[in-house]
Amino acid sequence: MKVSIIGATGYGGLELLRLLHQHPQVEIVSLHSFSAQTDDISRFYPHLHTVYHHELAEIDAVKIAEESEAVFLATPSGVAKEAAQPFIDVGMKVIDLSGDFRLTKEKYEKWYNKDAAPDAYLDQAEYGLAEWRENVDTTFISNPGCYATATLLGLAPLVMHGKVEADSIIVDAKSGISGAGKTPSANTHFPETNENMTLYRMNQHQHIPEIIRQLRVWDAGIDAITFSTSLIPVTRGIFATIYVKAKGATSTDELLSLYRESYDGKPFVRIQDKDVYPTLKQVTASNFCDIGLCYNERTNMITIVVVIDNLVKGAAGQAIQNLNLMAGFDETAGLDFIPVYP
Amino acid sequence: MKVSIIGATGYGGLELLRLLHQHPQVEIVSLHSFSAQTDDISRFYPHLHTVYHHELAEIDAVKIAEESEAVFLATPSGVAKEAAQPFIDVGMKVIDLSGDFRLTKEKYEKWYNKDAAPDAYLDQAEYGLAEWRENVDTTFISNPGCYATATLLGLAPLVMHGKVEADSIIVDAKSGISGAGKTPSANTHFPETNENMTLYRMNQHQHIPEIIRQLRVWDAGIDAITFSTSLIPVTRGIFATIYVKAKGATSTDELLSLYRESYDGKPFVRIQDKDVYPTLKQVTASNFCDIGLCYNERTNMITIVVVIDNLVKGAAGQAIQNLNLMAGFDETAGLDFIPVYP
Amino acid sequence: MKVSIIGATGYGGLELLRLLHQHPQVEIVSLHSFSAQTDDISRFYPHLHTVYHHELAEIDAVKIAEESEAVFLATPSGVAKEAAQPFIDVGMKVIDLSGDFRLTKEKYEKWYNKDAAPDAYLDQAEYGLAEWRENVDTTFISNPGCYATATLLGLAPLVMHGKVEADSIIVDAKSGISGAGKTPSANTHFPETNENMTLYRMNQHQHIPEIIRQLRVWDAGIDAITFSTSLIPVTRGIFATIYVKAKGATSTDELLSLYRESYDGKPFVRIQDKDVYPTLKQVTASNFCDIGLCYNERTNMITIVVVIDNLVKGAAGQAIQNLNLMAGFDETAGLDFIPVYP
Amino acid sequence: MKVSIIGATGYGGLELLRLLHQHPQVEIVSLHSFSAQTDDISRFYPHLHTVYHHELAEIDAVKIAEESEAVFLATPSGVAKEAAQPFIDVGMKVIDLSGDFRLTKEKYEKWYNKDAAPDAYLDQAEYGLAEWRENVDTTFISNPGCYATATLLGLAPLVMHGKVEADSIIVDAKSGISGAGKTPSANTHFPETNENMTLYRMNQHQHIPEIIRQLRVWDAGIDAITFSTSLIPVTRGIFATIYVKAKGATSTDELLSLYRESYDGKPFVRIQDKDVYPTLKQVTASNFCDIGLCYNERTNMITIVVVIDNLVKGAAGQAIQNLNLMAGFDETAGLDFIPVYP
Repeated sequence: MKVSIIGATGYGGLELLRLLHQHPQVEIVSLHSFSAQTDDISRFYPHLHTVYHHELAEIDAVKIAEESEAVFLATPSGVAKEAAQPFIDVGMKVIDLSGDFRLTKEKYEKWYNKDAAPDAYLDQAEYGLAEWRENVDTTFISNPGCYATATLLGLAPLVMHGKVEADSIIVDAKSGISGAGKTPSANTHFPETNENMTLYRMNQHQHIPEIIRQLRVWDAGIDAITFSTSLIPVTRGIFATIYVKAKGATSTDELLSLYRESYDGKPFVRIQDKDVYPTLKQVTASNFCDIGLCYNERTNMITIVVVIDNLVKGAAGQAIQNLNLMAGFDETAGLDFIPVYP
Repeated sequence: MKVSIIGATGYGGLELLRLLHQHPQVEIVSLHSFSAQTDDISRFYPHLHTVYHHELAEIDAVKIAEESEAVFLATPSGVAKEAAQPFIDVGMKVIDLSGDFRLTKEKYEKWYNKDAAPDAYLDQAEYGLAEWRENVDTTFISNPGCYATATLLGLAPLVMHGKVEADSIIVDAKSGISGAGKTPSANTHFPETNENMTLYRMNQHQHIPEIIRQLRVWDAGIDAITFSTSLIPVTRGIFATIYVKAKGATSTDELLSLYRESYDGKPFVRIQDKDVYPTLKQVTASNFCDIGLCYNERTNMITIVVVIDNLVKGAAGQAIQNLNLMAGFDETAGLDFIPVYP
Repeated sequence: MKVSIIGATGYGGLELLRLLHQHPQVEIVSLHSFSAQTDDISRFYPHLHTVYHHELAEIDAVKIAEESEAVFLATPSGVAKEAAQPFIDVGMKVIDLSGDFRLTKEKYEKWYNKDAAPDAYLDQAEYGLAEWRENVDTTFISNPGCYATATLLGLAPLVMHGKVEADSIIVDAKSGISGAGKTPSANTHFPETNENMTLYRMNQHQHIPEIIRQLRVWDAGIDAITFSTSLIPVTRGIFATIYVKAKGATSTDELLSLYRESYDGKPFVRIQDKDVYPTLKQVTASNFCDIGLCYNERTNMITIVVVIDNLVKGAAGQAIQNLNLMAGFDETAGLDFIPVYP
Repeated sequence: MKVSIIGATGYGGLELLRLLHQHPQVEIVSLHSFSAQTDDISRFYPHLHTVYHHELAEIDAVKIAEESEAVFLATPSGVAKEAAQPFIDVGMKVIDLSGDFRLTKEKYEKWYNKDAAPDAYLDQAEYGLAEWRENVDTTFISNPGCYATATLLGLAPLVMHGKVEADSIIVDAKSGISGAGKTPSANTHFPETNENMTLYRMNQHQHIPEIIRQLRVWDAGIDAITFSTSLIPVTRGIFATIYVKAKGATSTDELLSLYRESYDGKPFVRIQDKDVYPTLKQVTASNFCDIGLCYNERTNMITIVVVIDNLVKGAAGQAIQNLNLMAGFDETAGLDFIPVYP
């Protein structure tokens, strides 16, 4: 399958390129960027030198639509809402990694503080939480945010099965600094970031509404969550610690069984053994989402720990998993490798 | 005042030494270690070379009691319970940094899995949460654990004023690796720790019972908490994110006022402005405890963020603050410096 | 091709496993360890869970020789010298990643302070500096050390072409902490290693004699080098800065041409453009060796900068490259992926 | 003594503030910045909150000259050359931390690519390498660069005593990222810097001419050096590994004696024992410069390892040491504390 990448020079785009380069059924036919063009992308990225050379071109939607069967958009918020339209119009496979098609018009404009895409396009987008997609026949996927992926995969079995008090969900999510993207800022300046930890956007992160929207698909009683986002001094990874009050009697064993059943046949979610919690490094550079949990009967609280690589399962890897599902490829095609450890 | 340090070669003991070296009213007269003796501690610690030379001697309780007015014990759990006795017996000022005198006999034996100190000694120990000490006239201080210090300072105003639903307290605490002490292990091995985050002892950390014990002093309705402890790849620091359900109507402004009043006149606790959360680096190598918070009316949850340096406010610094209070020195003596930044 | 790995649980062995898992022409038929056995190696290494399951067995040389066509030994120094013998005896393909077969008996015993392998085996070993192997028909490869690989690839064109004053070679080599292996020690303890840099074994590292041995193959006038080894706080990577006095007139342009020609057709060595020096991250988790250089006419000195991933090009990756060459596979089989960045 | 700081908001200025705050004989009477003013500097720097409050004012040279006895300039290159003039004119004590007064006009314009200060001012500046200052009676100090401080302190005894072949000096210097200052850039962006090492400005760093200028004071035969500068992923510190060819017979013992004698009575330089090399962490946040060395008779090369904290001994600390010397204070006043470890 011939694919194009728009926004190839950000961290998400580069990770698409790294992963698709190994995909047995995909050929990258064009790379595009709004900000820079060159006859060879490896001029900008020495890690690509000799192993990957390709023109980085302007965006010519007609040409892309002619040459490619699928297009990935890995552009900042506010760009894809227009850039994606010609590809949706012609019925190509489209996967957008930004937040532009994840929300209703009203929510998008509130949380992103930008004009939303037209409803006609928003309505066509399928939210691509790959393990729990409703509609596999869609051609237009809105790929989830990194925090949303970790949170939703961690909560899905509980919420679907009515095991959670609806008003009790607390997510303490920590992210590596690559989640802030490739543009330097005071928050990503090494002397400020190293040996530090920072909490930002308490209850205000733009991934909150997409999380609530999906949780409400599973349990309409959920209305709000407590959601904190912190930066920790690692490059890659999301570590989400989730606390919920159990509804009804339960136990750690019962919950682990529920999770194992819920994720049976879903190759990228790995449920840990009892009393074992996943660590960031066990998923580095891979598409795995690892989950551990326990129930505390003294407080009636369940704690769930979820780890992903934000650039893979939280972005490029899940996008490819979604392509695999759309295209009828094996779900793990191009993604079936061992994480990089140590 | 002449003081001795027992357990001078661990991270806590070395930090006592660093801080006391600058204390205008304290003279260190002897250093002791169970594990090693030498005519000059700087042989083992090149950072001390030329700036601090002192014999590291065996423990001779009689001699220490003769020469010193105060003794710090910075030994591992299980050691001070006996080593402290002769000093308590003679009525010297004693400050124990371990967990040996923080709990009742029953709780200690359950959570530490070791024999407890005799009740006669346990009963004499004053829990040294410096900002909230009951009894300033004591001579025997049990210095709080690092996680306990951050958690209790973060919760004190709320719990004292009945602002918290008693069964709703969740603490998501992250610690730098120096909290694990000076002995190498798989959990502190750089290739396993760097670029990683690990949650350990979910609801099982030995600081939990001392937290609950003190919370119950303030609100007898509190029975249990949800408490997670994670390691993040920094050397120093505790970053505690605390979530509680508000009891009664409130607002962020009202809560910030409550905290400012509660900590008025307490020089080491700094309450942040609205919408500002403290970061680890703003307290590095200092005795400060910085606190930010917000109230979310959609979920009726309060989030409190607390940062300390685990080796200072979480250990040696608070111990010195306790000495200052006992000795009638200025509370900030030896501790009134600017944090190391960046 | 069926292969076995002996010493599968160290960092070198795990990296062999990660890379061979993706090799199109190789099947791992058995894993072995002296220190631990289990029915499933993923019990010890959660990153392997679901993606790689295999028994970790005791070493049964007869069985391995029957089942496998090639065997990798990734054991500590002093182990392979005996463990490899039965496989060499039957003429299997053998690749040893330790230092046991890199030196003459006399040099090994001096630098490793252990008894050497018998001469009959030492004589059969081909030093596997993959880009510059003399004898491609061998079946027994002694894989170079990580520091040696970086140093020799950085010096080869100059030394082969007589461009270096023989007594002027200085190597300032820095290594990531994974080079120290998986066993925790004071030198790898995070609080001691993070925010630190340490020089160790000045002019005494055991890779020095294998470097000199190979340099003398190219220029018999070389007798000694100045060689420093430092640890920097990264997990993976070697960054070698090499300084030599030029013999005869030269220029940066001429030298870059010489390097480009020397490494023409060698897919894993990438020569940088003028005024560009490689960084560690551009080779992370890959088999690349990237080289930049300059000539300073005021001092008549050439500076060469070489970066590799110590676990890949400095160990497992080069071992697989050597297998590919021995087996007649494409040299890049299993190794033709994009480095992990950022 | 009343002092003012111009450029108080950069890393150098903040470190001056941290250190002077503890100086027993100094009072900071005013802080100034070109880029920002506020009634309280702690608004910008939360680590200062409650412990240090002061107006951050515009620069009014007349007022500063009236109120202060000494002024520190911690501004970027190109600023002090004019800003310092009014203070020099009135004969105040002036200490400039930038490169503006370290070179002759010709060298400054070549290496900094900017107009130099007038000769009349350049001629008055005393190069403030504190341990080796010629003229203690000066009132105008040009404080050395961080790389220059480490390099010159490491070479001084050898060069002064004619122990070095003049054309053989090679400096491999590594710096923490705070050396790049407070402004974010691609080179300081955490995802690019963490787990990375980068060599920049090979033989082109602007500290080279001040190093050569001072070396020539000691040995007029020195004309050029080989000088590489690399960034390592730590916040603070310079680690310089220096290689020189010995002139005349020598030994490690003899050289260590020479260094011990040369630095006898100089409290901030600590010579290590034989076979011991200093590490970055043993000087963190302190004014120490620690030096280890060895001689290799096979190659006739001496290797010297020098560590400093770039913000202290490499900037603010040495500036205060220079003030102490000028003012007749104890040389260690305000600087006699134990390094922060771990």
